[in-house]
Amino acid sequence: MFNWLAGEMSVTPPAHVAILGLGLIGSSLLRRLVALGTAVTGYDADPSTLELAALEAPVAGSIADAVAGADLVVLAVPLPVAGAVLDEVQAAGYTGLLTDVTSVKAAPRRLAAQHCPGARWVGGHPMAGREQSGFAAGDATLFDGCAWVLTLEPDTGVADWLRLASLVAGIGARAVPATADEHDTAVARISHAPHVVAAALAARAAEGEAGSLALALGAGSFRDGTRVAATRPALTAAMCGGNAAALRTELDTLIDQLTAARGLLDDLDALADWFAPGHIVRAGWPPEPGPAKERPATREELLALGRAGGWVTAVAADGQSVTTVVPESP
Amino acid sequence: MFNWLAGEMSVTPPAHVAILGLGLIGSSLLRRLVALGTAVTGYDADPSTLELAALEAPVAGSIADAVAGADLVVLAVPLPVAGAVLDEVQAAGYTGLLTDVTSVKAAPRRLAAQHCPGARWVGGHPMAGREQSGFAAGDATLFDGCAWVLTLEPDTGVADWLRLASLVAGIGARAVPATADEHDTAVARISHAPHVVAAALAARAAEGEAGSLALALGAGSFRDGTRVAATRPALTAAMCGGNAAALRTELDTLIDQLTAARGLLDDLDALADWFAPGHIVRAGWPPEPGPAKERPATREELLALGRAGGWVTAVAADGQSVTTVVPESP
Repeated sequence: MFNWLAGEMSVTPPAHVAILGLGLIGSSLLRRLVALGTAVTGYDADPSTLELAALEAPVAGSIADAVAGADLVVLAVPLPVAGAVLDEVQAAGYTGLLTDVTSVKAAPRRLAAQHCPGARWVGGHPMAGREQSGFAAGDATLFDGCAWVLTLEPDTGVADWLRLASLVAGIGARAVPATADEHDTAVARISHAPHVVAAALAARAAEGEAGSLALALGAGSFRDGTRVAATRPALTAAMCGGNAAALRTELDTLIDQLTAARGLLDDLDALADWFAPGHIVRAGWPPEPGPAKERPATREELLALGRAGGWVTAVAADGQSVTTVVPESP
Repeated sequence: MFNWLAGEMSVTPPAHVAILGLGLIGSSLLRRLVALGTAVTGYDADPSTLELAALEAPVAGSIADAVAGADLVVLAVPLPVAGAVLDEVQAAGYTGLLTDVTSVKAAPRRLAAQHCPGARWVGGHPMAGREQSGFAAGDATLFDGCAWVLTLEPDTGVADWLRLASLVAGIGARAVPATADEHDTAVARISHAPHVVAAALAARAAEGEAGSLALALGAGSFRDGTRVAATRPALTAAMCGGNAAALRTELDTLIDQLTAARGLLDDLDALADWFAPGHIVRAGWPPEPGPAKERPATREELLALGRAGGWVTAVAADGQSVTTVVPESP
């Protein structure tokens, strides 16, 4: 039935994965792939990280050695050094699938086109942060059930997207199709703005003579509302600065919302009405997953799936269809 | 040594507690006191709540019956109905210790002076919220280790304060001395502003065409940063509106902080510097408790203790000294 691309669409998951950068995300993926028995090679610019990694998995001493023989390269370095690493991948003559795990998607897409045009780019972002970072914080179970965005642009091959989706679904994550711009708008809302707010609330709590008492009284709303402020400032800054345009819109919106709430503090009914939409959203989140459903594996179907809040859980071997889940409406 | 008030300062903890209002906080305290074997009587205006409570503890069918024989009345009703309940306590001829559990302290203090001048007021606030509310959500362990502010004003008797502190410490909470104004400034920072922000972030995430994808990508920072948005809007509005003046200052500060961050999004170093203070605060929170130390039980010592972020863990029977803990500096 879905055979309009038969012949060019058979999906073979990546057979040999190179992971460049073994921080929290890279080392978690390394551990997960080792546990699954997938051929994988790790690389990190830091010799002591590489030494630790060698105790758990095959590693290479250079980027060129790491990508030799790989049919998927995962760029798992901070955005500020991504361009330099991509130059080395290009210099090594790599021409296979290339993805990343960065928390923004438009910026690395531009970098890949500029620094590593020989490879086939599909941007990636597992929504699985943690306030600890580094190799030691990695965990093979980090991606269980997490949303893992894979970008699908007009110039992305659907077969390439499906290959990566097959890997992502195979490690137990939810492969979410989205354009880089759709992703960046979404994460500015649900991750970057919350990071800015968390830092502001934490810094303010401690200020001046009232600070010690305030910190002593901090309970659930402070603990949870500021948790991500414990992340290293350089990482948070790279993430937020890498998505400046979308985040600027969110901060403007947030300032408007706070200004509106500020004007209602003396009117309890109006203030309760102001709190209602957030209550409805959060009380219904996360929604229940709906039943699994087969869909044709076309660009349009996949992008519509992502916009509906859905994800891919399996890819048919012939590349003609995907198994998908969409959240139940509350 | 600390005998300047000997004779009038012996501390007898309350022997019979009446709890008016059996929502989350009232029912948790009821259950805890029942478990400790303290004489306690519960009351709630809602007949079905009262019926449920009667299965676990002594209850009374009216406020007058509930406060008869009590030497401590705990007002555990929402602020908007506190005045009416206090009128009934006053009408019942109650003249003993009176406290509350409201999340603001200046407003109920004014209400108590106006509606129940016959009783001796010491405001209270256990920092132990939860997004569920109502009798069924109550839990005898809710206050374990939590900060429980007890207000100490120029017109508060230190002996009255110590009696309540003795009860609060006896149920495993940290009795924190503070003036109502100090309390309200602190909780605007660590609770009320976080509630406003959580509601704003949750509402915004779901907005428009980008909403479904954003909610599908919500992970740790969204989950934790918006958790308290699930609280009932009327409760959050009463809490925030009851502390309007202090919260207005905090929202102004927050808007200034967000505006500053917005201006730094294109300068990663400056942005990382902006994130640094929040990181330092949150990475060091909660601080380790220091060693227990005896201090004289004077008004000045107690208020200084609260301002330093410390709390009372025990009250000497003669009312001359308290055992205190202050957080270790990071």
